Amino acid sequence: MARIAIDLHGGDFGPSVTLPSSLQFFRQHPQHYGVLVGRAELCRVSVEQLPPNTEWVEADPLGDQSHKPSRLLRHAGNSSIEVAFRMLEDQVVDALVSAEHTGVLLALVTKHGTLHSLLTRPVLASWLPTKAKPTVMLDLGASFSATSDQLLAYAAIGSGLFRTESSLPTLALLNVGTEYFKGPPELRNANQLLSEWPSIRYQGFIEASQVFEGKLDVIVCDGFTGNSVIKASEGALDLTLGSLQSVFNRGLLLRLLGLALKRPIQQALSPLDPHKANGALIAGSNLMAVKSHGNAGQVAFKAAIERSADLVNRQVIPAVWRELNRLIDDDVLD
Amino acid sequence: MARIAIDLHGGDFGPSVTLPSSLQFFRQHPQHYGVLVGRAELCRVSVEQLPPNTEWVEADPLGDQSHKPSRLLRHAGNSSIEVAFRMLEDQVVDALVSAEHTGVLLALVTKHGTLHSLLTRPVLASWLPTKAKPTVMLDLGASFSATSDQLLAYAAIGSGLFRTESSLPTLALLNVGTEYFKGPPELRNANQLLSEWPSIRYQGFIEASQVFEGKLDVIVCDGFTGNSVIKASEGALDLTLGSLQSVFNRGLLLRLLGLALKRPIQQALSPLDPHKANGALIAGSNLMAVKSHGNAGQVAFKAAIERSADLVNRQVIPAVWRELNRLIDDDVLD
Repeated sequence: MARIAIDLHGGDFGPSVTLPSSLQFFRQHPQHYGVLVGRAELCRVSVEQLPPNTEWVEADPLGDQSHKPSRLLRHAGNSSIEVAFRMLEDQVVDALVSAEHTGVLLALVTKHGTLHSLLTRPVLASWLPTKAKPTVMLDLGASFSATSDQLLAYAAIGSGLFRTESSLPTLALLNVGTEYFKGPPELRNANQLLSEWPSIRYQGFIEASQVFEGKLDVIVCDGFTGNSVIKASEGALDLTLGSLQSVFNRGLLLRLLGLALKRPIQQALSPLDPHKANGALIAGSNLMAVKSHGNAGQVAFKAAIERSADLVNRQVIPAVWRELNRLIDDDVLD
Repeated sequence: MARIAIDLHGGDFGPSVTLPSSLQFFRQHPQHYGVLVGRAELCRVSVEQLPPNTEWVEADPLGDQSHKPSRLLRHAGNSSIEVAFRMLEDQVVDALVSAEHTGVLLALVTKHGTLHSLLTRPVLASWLPTKAKPTVMLDLGASFSATSDQLLAYAAIGSGLFRTESSLPTLALLNVGTEYFKGPPELRNANQLLSEWPSIRYQGFIEASQVFEGKLDVIVCDGFTGNSVIKASEGALDLTLGSLQSVFNRGLLLRLLGLALKRPIQQALSPLDPHKANGALIAGSNLMAVKSHGNAGQVAFKAAIERSADLVNRQVIPAVWRELNRLIDDDVLD
């Protein structure tokens, strides 16, 4: 059972997406408990008719999204996202889900939570669709760069998300080449240190072309690179699908073929849909904050809620903390 | 007319690809002159039967590719790539084309050429396939990071590749967000300086998802990010096409549809083929060295030779130099 606070006002579409997603999730999962945070009037909801495993908490939207996070947060006192974070801090809920901007969420994790001593900022960890099993990649943009010790901390976080009694996670470092002498010093150093750490199955360097092969549990990189890799992949996917679509607009026969193929093609591409993998963990603190894409639709936002419930059930926050401590205990750091 | 030296021994497939590509190119383009550099015995060529607009220069393969570039180059004296570079330095040829490793080519450009004073290393500039017109992106991995002044130098190089009497190139900086306050300090600083430089049409920040839209002439980023973005896109493209292919393996009807659609789909995707865009410029020196993908086939290697001829004809080396000087003359740098 997970108690999950939902920030209804985050994201590009606000309650028009977050509310129906949440209601559907909690109706389908009576074992979980939802705290829906938002302004009822703006959400056009009659709070008397909510599912019995949910409650309503009144709070305001955060305000104009075009401002810097720091400026937004000065006036955030009764915003839905800040209210949800206070409930998380007070352990009234086990997790929160929000489609708010990353910068806002990072600032609030730092304000309301306790970061592990190995970190100076939280870390954005996301599940990628691949050819095989899902892979977690981090950092995806919480920081712009990473020292070798920070890369090791990211590795420990990733490990905590997967490690079980019986198996060690497989993990690689993202670099511009796979040979040990490639890349900047912080990566070569982290490569050396990770290869000597017995608590993971470290696979060495991989290149960005291998990210989607699905052979690994965890891929570690600095946040600027991670963010660029994910966005570039989205752009490349867009370009390919757009070009394919144009094939089926060339005359009647191809149009008919396109209709016949629409369903099987959608089925084949559906595992690659980034929305199915929605729900990134803002990791490295004692709080479980899950970030949805800002432009998530109902299916995607519900996937983020499902992620948060799964992460609560698997108790990943203490597991991540344990792996970070293990880095210190095993004397792995530089 | 361009005089082009071809390093026959570079690349994963060596002369079995580079020689037929070169012969085809110079037969089709009698106005250009080719200097084919390699060991005739290994290339299985009878040098008497070469096209009249080519000549043969004997030289050895470079040796075991698994070593570091620095170690390789200590024994490079009579290698095909070093011989080609000496001809380029002596202005016996206008350009060289090689599928040798980037590290080797960067080291030889520095050894045989003169870098512009604004640069400490050459810069790898590559033409990307996009939805619209081709876009040049740089740096793609010659360096691992870039200061704001280095990013400005990359912008000047990109500008030199496109600027004409009548039009200024459009250019953007790659960042993790498009707002002016996003990203690390060197990017925010470069953004400010570029916005004040009248010699380009600067468009501000773009995110990696916009790289393939084809709205820009030039995209500037540090080499680690650029390298990762391109490789990630290749991986994402692979993943998509593999999933699509699987659609056409599900039963007889889909197999037949697949056969009918093979040609139009190939036609639609052909502009996205990275091999068609083969031929990166190792820029920033007085030498015109064009790098082919190591795994290029005959079509791709020929595309790299075509690129070198085009760049010689458009006299981009002096144009790039002019734009780099303009950065100094206009007092744009930090």
